[in-house]
Amino acid sequence: MSTRIVELKKVKLKNPVFIEGLPGVGNVGRIAGGYLVEELKAVKFAELYSSHFMPFVILQKGATVHVLKNEFYYWKAKKRGQRDLIILIGDSQSINPEGHYDVVYTILDYLAKFKVKDMFTLAGLSVGEKKEKPNVIGATNDDKLIKKYSKYGIDFKSGENIGTIVGASGLLIGLGKERGINGVCLLGETSGMPLLPDPRAAEEVLKVLAKILNVKIDTSKIKEKVKEMENFIKRIESIQRKAILDIMKQKLPKIGKKAKEEELSYIG
Amino acid sequence: MSTRIVELKKVKLKNPVFIEGLPGVGNVGRIAGGYLVEELKAVKFAELYSSHFMPFVILQKGATVHVLKNEFYYWKAKKRGQRDLIILIGDSQSINPEGHYDVVYTILDYLAKFKVKDMFTLAGLSVGEKKEKPNVIGATNDDKLIKKYSKYGIDFKSGENIGTIVGASGLLIGLGKERGINGVCLLGETSGMPLLPDPRAAEEVLKVLAKILNVKIDTSKIKEKVKEMENFIKRIESIQRKAILDIMKQKLPKIGKKAKEEELSYIG
Amino acid sequence: MSTRIVELKKVKLKNPVFIEGLPGVGNVGRIAGGYLVEELKAVKFAELYSSHFMPFVILQKGATVHVLKNEFYYWKAKKRGQRDLIILIGDSQSINPEGHYDVVYTILDYLAKFKVKDMFTLAGLSVGEKKEKPNVIGATNDDKLIKKYSKYGIDFKSGENIGTIVGASGLLIGLGKERGINGVCLLGETSGMPLLPDPRAAEEVLKVLAKILNVKIDTSKIKEKVKEMENFIKRIESIQRKAILDIMKQKLPKIGKKAKEEELSYIG
Amino acid sequence: MSTRIVELKKVKLKNPVFIEGLPGVGNVGRIAGGYLVEELKAVKFAELYSSHFMPFVILQKGATVHVLKNEFYYWKAKKRGQRDLIILIGDSQSINPEGHYDVVYTILDYLAKFKVKDMFTLAGLSVGEKKEKPNVIGATNDDKLIKKYSKYGIDFKSGENIGTIVGASGLLIGLGKERGINGVCLLGETSGMPLLPDPRAAEEVLKVLAKILNVKIDTSKIKEKVKEMENFIKRIESIQRKAILDIMKQKLPKIGKKAKEEELSYIG
Repeated sequence: MSTRIVELKKVKLKNPVFIEGLPGVGNVGRIAGGYLVEELKAVKFAELYSSHFMPFVILQKGATVHVLKNEFYYWKAKKRGQRDLIILIGDSQSINPEGHYDVVYTILDYLAKFKVKDMFTLAGLSVGEKKEKPNVIGATNDDKLIKKYSKYGIDFKSGENIGTIVGASGLLIGLGKERGINGVCLLGETSGMPLLPDPRAAEEVLKVLAKILNVKIDTSKIKEKVKEMENFIKRIESIQRKAILDIMKQKLPKIGKKAKEEELSYIG
Repeated sequence: MSTRIVELKKVKLKNPVFIEGLPGVGNVGRIAGGYLVEELKAVKFAELYSSHFMPFVILQKGATVHVLKNEFYYWKAKKRGQRDLIILIGDSQSINPEGHYDVVYTILDYLAKFKVKDMFTLAGLSVGEKKEKPNVIGATNDDKLIKKYSKYGIDFKSGENIGTIVGASGLLIGLGKERGINGVCLLGETSGMPLLPDPRAAEEVLKVLAKILNVKIDTSKIKEKVKEMENFIKRIESIQRKAILDIMKQKLPKIGKKAKEEELSYIG
Repeated sequence: MSTRIVELKKVKLKNPVFIEGLPGVGNVGRIAGGYLVEELKAVKFAELYSSHFMPFVILQKGATVHVLKNEFYYWKAKKRGQRDLIILIGDSQSINPEGHYDVVYTILDYLAKFKVKDMFTLAGLSVGEKKEKPNVIGATNDDKLIKKYSKYGIDFKSGENIGTIVGASGLLIGLGKERGINGVCLLGETSGMPLLPDPRAAEEVLKVLAKILNVKIDTSKIKEKVKEMENFIKRIESIQRKAILDIMKQKLPKIGKKAKEEELSYIG
Repeated sequence: MSTRIVELKKVKLKNPVFIEGLPGVGNVGRIAGGYLVEELKAVKFAELYSSHFMPFVILQKGATVHVLKNEFYYWKAKKRGQRDLIILIGDSQSINPEGHYDVVYTILDYLAKFKVKDMFTLAGLSVGEKKEKPNVIGATNDDKLIKKYSKYGIDFKSGENIGTIVGASGLLIGLGKERGINGVCLLGETSGMPLLPDPRAAEEVLKVLAKILNVKIDTSKIKEKVKEMENFIKRIESIQRKAILDIMKQKLPKIGKKAKEEELSYIG
């Protein structure tokens, strides 16, 4: 089955900008993406399912089940200087290396239908300490973009020292280049503490993004929202953590002393 | 190869209800499903094989080999107020995360041929202690169903706190929603002790299911049956457990102190 | 790529019997199969490659590389009472669970071209101790075959207690049944000591097989042959063992105390 | 997605020789291949991407992202006695066993378009100690080639004792044979110390290769170049190492004492 997209409604968009905000370090991308969708009242039009997500459903309020997925929202420009948007948010990334490529290529193939030419991916960057005012560090797939976007307060200088960007935020702009998409990854500095969603980093990322997109986002409610979300996010994360542990327990039973000797002799 | 279904006979069914009972916590689903098939004298019409099951055959009485599989049975309504049934039972679920999606989508594609609109998945819910009278907790893919089925003694209230349902019972109703199938998962409370099939939990699940399906199931023999099955089930489980261990031993030889240093240097 | 068969020459065979002898416990199947090919001067006509084998080449005498593969040989009946044979031998089985199904289905699809109706798979059965006269234990995919083959000295009684047959020898007869192939697995009792090829068990398996096939096999040279092979086999096995270790070292670097805390936080 | 090649420009080559130089022991292949491309001013004409590479992008100078890939370069013969070349270099090999086959078959399929008949793969051979003058050990897919190439100072004698060649350098010549490609693997002796690129071994391999190809390569600058590269290579390797560790941490959380008991009971 791998990865597939279920389109809920046909949407016509004019030269849309693509925004990605999926789970990751400090949940910066997920928080920023989710808040953007809410503030803009963007409308869901497609869902992405993948066998590279955890094989379980999550029980929601009212005992209804929730399958892990990513969701595409659209928003139409309201005035001159704005552009149509496609926003991808969701509650999972691939749980295996190969899956990241599969999911990202599926997304890029879908974006091709909308002739997407510009992309911003939102992520966190673990810097090991909490910062009063987290920087927004930039990485891009075309150095011409550095000049274009530096004015928005993105720190491209520090980008050199990041090392790697693992998962969708990195691969989308990396593999998107070949499709002719200009891509910038906005990384909010965060402590990198696990299970700790970082609204401050998300806020800074959103401020930069709002300036670029020429939309007004009231970020004052973001902490409050995250507090509301926090319990839910923490719960999902601890569930995922537990589920991974459970599955691993099944797949990796303790190996005794005799393991080495017998290792190649199991086939009858 | 992945997953495929071998149809043993063509069957015409009228608006059938789908029931799933596969191995899991306390083997509640497997026991309830198997007992239902036996009591109704349902007829096997298809088998499902998957490369996501363990790569071995089990030796049965008479030295004949048994390949791990899932089996589809049908039962035709005998009187007004009953409906045709498709019952899926079997001795395995996927041994890797991706496989669960593959198996479940294969099942859903097959059910589409029968225009299945209603589904019940049977499972156990580990509550950490043995209960005198285990509850049957419900989860669903549509909150309208809660009202419809609450009268049958299903506890949908507690469903919110389950966390996740891993494997086929959860994914079938979760992914089935998109196919337009109304799905309810019936979870019998069980202690969660490994290798311990729980006939009491299965009995409670079956009682609820029988009421919904308007069929008469004499559950008085279930303990007895499980005792008969117990040795067989225990044997299969301990075999599977051993086989997983053996395979893991092969794939995960003990790693000495030098592992870390050399880890990236194996390619010639 | 998965698994594919490269046909070296077109062969016409009349109602051939299929024999499988691949590596496994005590290398019983591999030794018996290889000796049979040599004694009958069977001719290679196809090779099977698979991405489920180890991703390396083995250096042979003369510095030429050897890719891991399975090989199909044929032998034509010389006199009445004999039948054409297809013999599969090789130096590897799948290194992952899914691969066993993939390889076995590829073999079965290929055998279908030759309308194979009868199959014998050769394997070792670990009994924990060296036996003076190892039994040949039988497992089958059709209990009618037990009567037919019991007269050849196969112990089908003990077959019930084997538990499982992992890999090609088990799956070939298990999945072959659905294709209408009568299958018997001949398991020579062996100590199960790793890296110890067991010519005695292979000899007993071969004796039974020769009687069934009505061919004359001089098994007196088998120990000698195995001694010749032993160094080679041991070398290949210790190479495989080392290679598995090396690959695992790369893929499973030691995990420190901080692993648990950080496990879900690697995505940027 | 697996593995795919993106062609950047159409190139016509006359009976080209294929050279592979990818990362591995002592980075001998990568250094030799990269230096060859630079010295010959070979031109890039295709890129290979694979879901079997690490799922991240690397940040480069100027904050631009770099997706892991392999790259095809061509060079046209300048004078009689030379031949057109296709040179494959890159920064990754597959991170899982199956992927090696997938990548290698994708390369071989692509080479078939250029009717490649001769191939040299460049690699390091870990000998456990630093050598003043490292030998270049040869392995081949056809023993007729030993005579042809021995005069170039390749030690085919020692090739017998190598054991295995893991990854692309081995599989390319091994699987290439079936495609009718004459293949020689040139292995430079190196200490096998991890993270230590070995320019001396690469130099010796290059000298042999230059003689065979009848091209002039000034190897005097190789140490210098490697020193320049060293920081970059070390950085990439330590990043990869860290990333593998991070991903493994996610996928292999520590397993407590209860793991064994619960291992098979996670499915609801």
